[in-house]
Amino acid sequence: MDTTRIEMVMEQIRRRIAGRSLLPGSKLPSVRAHAKTSGVSVSTVVEAYDRLVAEGVVLSRPGSGFYVATQTAPLLLSEVGPKLDRAIDPFWVSRQSLEATDNTEKPGCGWLPPDWLPEAGLRRGLRALSRASGIALAEYGSPLGLPPLRQLITRRMAEKGIEAPPDQVILTESGTQAIDLLCRYLIDPGDTVLLDDPCYFNFQALLRAHRVQVVSVPYTPNGPDIEVFASVLAEHRPRLYITNSAVHNPTGATLSPVIAHRVLMLAEQHGLTIVEDDIFADFEHVPGPRLAAFDGLNRVIHIGSFSKTLSASARCGFIAAKKDWIDGIVDLKIATTFGGGRLNAELVLSVLSDGGHRKYLEGLRMRLARARHEVGAKLREIGIVPLLEPQAGMFLWCRVPGPRSSAQVARAALVDGVVLAPGNAFSPAQTAGDLMRFNVSQIGNSRVFETIQRSLSQSCSGDR
Amino acid sequence: MDTTRIEMVMEQIRRRIAGRSLLPGSKLPSVRAHAKTSGVSVSTVVEAYDRLVAEGVVLSRPGSGFYVATQTAPLLLSEVGPKLDRAIDPFWVSRQSLEATDNTEKPGCGWLPPDWLPEAGLRRGLRALSRASGIALAEYGSPLGLPPLRQLITRRMAEKGIEAPPDQVILTESGTQAIDLLCRYLIDPGDTVLLDDPCYFNFQALLRAHRVQVVSVPYTPNGPDIEVFASVLAEHRPRLYITNSAVHNPTGATLSPVIAHRVLMLAEQHGLTIVEDDIFADFEHVPGPRLAAFDGLNRVIHIGSFSKTLSASARCGFIAAKKDWIDGIVDLKIATTFGGGRLNAELVLSVLSDGGHRKYLEGLRMRLARARHEVGAKLREIGIVPLLEPQAGMFLWCRVPGPRSSAQVARAALVDGVVLAPGNAFSPAQTAGDLMRFNVSQIGNSRVFETIQRSLSQSCSGDR
Repeated sequence: MDTTRIEMVMEQIRRRIAGRSLLPGSKLPSVRAHAKTSGVSVSTVVEAYDRLVAEGVVLSRPGSGFYVATQTAPLLLSEVGPKLDRAIDPFWVSRQSLEATDNTEKPGCGWLPPDWLPEAGLRRGLRALSRASGIALAEYGSPLGLPPLRQLITRRMAEKGIEAPPDQVILTESGTQAIDLLCRYLIDPGDTVLLDDPCYFNFQALLRAHRVQVVSVPYTPNGPDIEVFASVLAEHRPRLYITNSAVHNPTGATLSPVIAHRVLMLAEQHGLTIVEDDIFADFEHVPGPRLAAFDGLNRVIHIGSFSKTLSASARCGFIAAKKDWIDGIVDLKIATTFGGGRLNAELVLSVLSDGGHRKYLEGLRMRLARARHEVGAKLREIGIVPLLEPQAGMFLWCRVPGPRSSAQVARAALVDGVVLAPGNAFSPAQTAGDLMRFNVSQIGNSRVFETIQRSLSQSCSGDR
Repeated sequence: MDTTRIEMVMEQIRRRIAGRSLLPGSKLPSVRAHAKTSGVSVSTVVEAYDRLVAEGVVLSRPGSGFYVATQTAPLLLSEVGPKLDRAIDPFWVSRQSLEATDNTEKPGCGWLPPDWLPEAGLRRGLRALSRASGIALAEYGSPLGLPPLRQLITRRMAEKGIEAPPDQVILTESGTQAIDLLCRYLIDPGDTVLLDDPCYFNFQALLRAHRVQVVSVPYTPNGPDIEVFASVLAEHRPRLYITNSAVHNPTGATLSPVIAHRVLMLAEQHGLTIVEDDIFADFEHVPGPRLAAFDGLNRVIHIGSFSKTLSASARCGFIAAKKDWIDGIVDLKIATTFGGGRLNAELVLSVLSDGGHRKYLEGLRMRLARARHEVGAKLREIGIVPLLEPQAGMFLWCRVPGPRSSAQVARAALVDGVVLAPGNAFSPAQTAGDLMRFNVSQIGNSRVFETIQRSLSQSCSGDR
């Protein structure tokens, strides 16, 4: 059928509605009448009317005809532009980053720009999916999730020394959902949970939803400060510790084998369970120590996702845990999300199985290494100093020169359309007022540096 | 590149590993050597090795070469076949249905077979997505979710008399996740929640995860028994009531305007909030009364999803709620799942905007009407009697003749590879021991009726 003619008919109707020659609630010309006056076929008008129905512009009343819809969608005015008045809390960076419009720069966000991700592989994967079985397109996933993807995850974990057969791997809708399910399974309201200081801000937001107490341990370049770790365990008896081992967010630090061993010894001694969040695993050049590898999934639960190096749009994460816990976690998964997102799992499997994906990852790691070096140098030029030189990943954790706090700098930059990530959003103990996380992949153009530099010497009132 | 040759090389390597002429950990022939001996190009061998790496069969050590992986994936033996020993609880139907293998029939499940769903539309949608912007493929969704899909949902709700502008619509990962978020937002552990008896079994499983007390009200062909409803509200003071208005699961009943009005009056009087789960909306021939339409999203929150008439593989649901509640719910959504599944939302939008989708839905409703009639007749022949004749949907809620309970019948059928849905899985008060839900779209072949008939006169021991 001729698409141009269909669109022409749609446009005619839309104009008549906009020009009020067809009022809300009034009947459209009959299909035959419209075909005659417009000089197009009946089937063209039918298709045009159907599409207008699908758009909600027109309503169909079977046996009667087509009518102009009485409700038209209001503009999404409330969603335009950054909300400048939000408190700087664990939600601040995520809301500002996720709400950012196309002309906002977001060096504060925690993901790569689309053109750093494997777009070609994703497009190939989607084309392959368009030819997949009806089951893949339409049915719920199985309780644990797509078996070949779980097998592949098992093999990828084995490369890092983690032994987890596929029946100990559960697919989830995301890495965040993986941690959420584990909190539901492992902790009760009022329990105490241990976090790193600083740590990924959303851990705090998530734990708030679980109504637990949060305690924290300073994170050093080699892992948690082990003396403080020991005393916090003795004093507060946390049930759970949530941490990143390989590429720590936000510092970029790497856990050392010595600290890993001591953490596990203390966990054993105090009955602590550990969730090791490994979503930055693919950024590593050489696999570092993993708590789950040393521990054999005894006290450690290992989680991951594909949102950092594959796609954040096709959400998919996983949990690897001891066999005894699988059934209980799966029951919770079904109760709270029913079957998982099979389509996303199929797409992730397709991209990961693509022979070119390994090369893409190698290229990405090199690109990130270059960007860390270059962005680090430019930040130093304006007085912002990285606390350490991460071996991998997209983050630089930096000290801002003052006298403005990083929250003040972030607010000032937001007015100019740049989303930054002030340190205290990451700090359960609020010890990072002069620190800030930068995503080296999101800071390519010079306007961003100019805005940051300007923001260093301005401030919004009323802020710490 | 020649795919056949690449696969040939992969097959050669796989055979040598299987035949133990290449042992785990040993080095593969160099790319050049293998190209020479096999008579293929170097690039063919490189691609074959890369794909074997992606499969996890082979490991790459940069600068050194390719090695046989030391771990191979074990078989997923534990996942094969139904688990016959599970208790008949709210998880029974979902686990058995979701775990069912290809040669299992599942008249107990709650979804349509793939060939009843809009496969062609989904395939078109995926092809369109493969050409979409990098942002659609790779980025997180915005906090509320894809704006044009929310606008479309607003227009669809308007057809049912529900006024909810797009900034009062939140996309979620699924209908189940929508209810889960609302429970998190609205209730505390220890609160009391009211359900229909019978009701969708997963409401009970979900509420168990929220540690609340469940009370129930008998569901009549016109809605909840309003006398009992009034006395339960007075006695137990539930904070929340979760129900289906349009096509009630499992009974297929439709809420009447009179009962709707009285439910809302009593809710107002007792400070009750109502979650109206409308995931079967697209099955209706004529829109029935909605609590959210009468109430104007004051005490009622309306939720829906696309898993029943579009795809359960591309998970996507939504919440429509009063403006005051949107920010709090979105904060919880970000804390527990971060950005939403943008890819699924894009696909759903694409299929819904397709001019042919309305015709597909009309055809589906007719097909279901025929199937309800035919399956109902065949069930009556073997003594199974529908309690009412639903005006829409895929379910028949039936009395089994006895003396076996429906749980006994379901266990016996499971042994023969047929998953049924015994009544008490749906009944918070356990009053449905002689009832059973049948999905008329999943009961096409005669083997299923033979198995059911045989199961009526058999039983497994030890069952109620």
